[in-house]
Amino acid sequence: MILGIDIGGTTSKLGLVRDGQVIARARIGTTGHADDHAFADALAHEARQLAGAHGTRISAIGIGAPNANQLTGIIEMAPNLPWKHDVPLARMMADRLGAPAVLGNDANAAALGEWRYGAGQGINDLLVVTLGTGVGSGFIVNGQLVLGSAGNAGELGHTILIPEGRDCTCGRQGCLEAYVSIRGMIATYQECGGAPGAMDVKTIADRGHQGEQAAIDCFRLTTDRLAIGLVNAVCATGPKRIVLFGGIARNGDLLMAPLRDRFHAMLLNIYKGRVDLSVSALPDDDAALLGAAALGTLE
Amino acid sequence: MILGIDIGGTTSKLGLVRDGQVIARARIGTTGHADDHAFADALAHEARQLAGAHGTRISAIGIGAPNANQLTGIIEMAPNLPWKHDVPLARMMADRLGAPAVLGNDANAAALGEWRYGAGQGINDLLVVTLGTGVGSGFIVNGQLVLGSAGNAGELGHTILIPEGRDCTCGRQGCLEAYVSIRGMIATYQECGGAPGAMDVKTIADRGHQGEQAAIDCFRLTTDRLAIGLVNAVCATGPKRIVLFGGIARNGDLLMAPLRDRFHAMLLNIYKGRVDLSVSALPDDDAALLGAAALGTLE
Repeated sequence: MILGIDIGGTTSKLGLVRDGQVIARARIGTTGHADDHAFADALAHEARQLAGAHGTRISAIGIGAPNANQLTGIIEMAPNLPWKHDVPLARMMADRLGAPAVLGNDANAAALGEWRYGAGQGINDLLVVTLGTGVGSGFIVNGQLVLGSAGNAGELGHTILIPEGRDCTCGRQGCLEAYVSIRGMIATYQECGGAPGAMDVKTIADRGHQGEQAAIDCFRLTTDRLAIGLVNAVCATGPKRIVLFGGIARNGDLLMAPLRDRFHAMLLNIYKGRVDLSVSALPDDDAALLGAAALGTLE
Repeated sequence: MILGIDIGGTTSKLGLVRDGQVIARARIGTTGHADDHAFADALAHEARQLAGAHGTRISAIGIGAPNANQLTGIIEMAPNLPWKHDVPLARMMADRLGAPAVLGNDANAAALGEWRYGAGQGINDLLVVTLGTGVGSGFIVNGQLVLGSAGNAGELGHTILIPEGRDCTCGRQGCLEAYVSIRGMIATYQECGGAPGAMDVKTIADRGHQGEQAAIDCFRLTTDRLAIGLVNAVCATGPKRIVLFGGIARNGDLLMAPLRDRFHAMLLNIYKGRVDLSVSALPDDDAALLGAAALGTLE
């Protein structure tokens, strides 16, 4: 039985996972604790309750969190979490629960989740791209998650797509994330002359379905830009499959269908017919927990 | 004792390699043989002569070649080689010489060569980029050469740098290779208004040293573009070091010095101070043979 923990900015979720199924869930606030030790105590308390109620023992712990470094087991000064110092959460939870713990960043958790339980099962050369507030990614090469020498590989969202392009939150310009994230799509929609009030991608999609030109143009531009980002990523590690994760990828007609066409058309010749594009096969509500649990399977 | 074989368009080189040193060399024409079997016979004959003359036995064979697929051991319809069909050269040489053989493409051979014997020794997360007629690359992740699911990973030269940019030999537009290869630099030099007659990078460099503005501009633009390609590659696999290989990288003042500044300035924050940029440490004449021999060490 694996304990998955997904640390979010406001809420943290816990789940007991067996054979790729979440069989019990709990949640606590991430904020409002005296310090990081009190937060870890609260997590451990909930975990013991869950395991006790199901008459089971936790054999491994996987924790997904922003700014997590898998090599060190530390959450490194995460801007969106309450603690402005390094938090060695892997060790803190392992000590409290007496089971080995692996901490990893959200995008790597998503990648492992898709690989173990989702749309990437059995695919040992895999790329998972998360499309949300930001754009994250996890590369799996030869059956191994790529961590990089400092534990920070897989920042596809910050590859520069358009030199001297749109400002990115990273302080540079023209990153993929500045165009194909939620924020990026809203900016594109405004540039296309979209009607005010669209503060989320669902609204833009709804307007696209109603035939609004700005919304249609926004999705077309997003598709073109994402296609370039993905064909470029293929040139690095030569994956057999790319899985897209997150609400944006749930837009089948406006995004995924034209994206597949564009992606396959733009692929370098030697990759044609050798890589496909899929959407996450994990249930939205449990995806983060399953990803976290998949980190636990690495121990 | 490893036999390294470097297959070129006109000439193929053989070398006996021990402890990172080429201790004996031979060469034969790649063209002019009745067929691929006759070519393999000629290679085997030279190899036996070399080994006999040095009273040694060949324990492993490494072969670097264009369009080589390491997963299959086959040279796949190489446009610049005499044989327009698949040539299973790894098996053909292993059969003839009674030693295990590994075949790999030139860029991967260069990557392994730098890793085993050159500027990447001891660096288990490494990227080697070859700058020549084309732009090739080999990614090493966690001490393992990245082959990709179909044996064709590491085509950094064909990442799209400038959407709808300059035509590339691959049939697409805006690839890194269209700008930072020998051909790309000559095109840039012409665009900058360079004087006619510069058909190689050395001539452009000489003119740059004489203060010619077009040559200086050409190197500046090349530097800017290569920096983007490299910082983007870092975002994929998070290497600790990038090694540049090939004559273009031998331009210290015109290319490498400004490239280092630009690269470090443009790196995503989380990578700053965690990745460095080096030039190949293998002797030019032996680099290809040492790379081929490094493939042999994989067996």
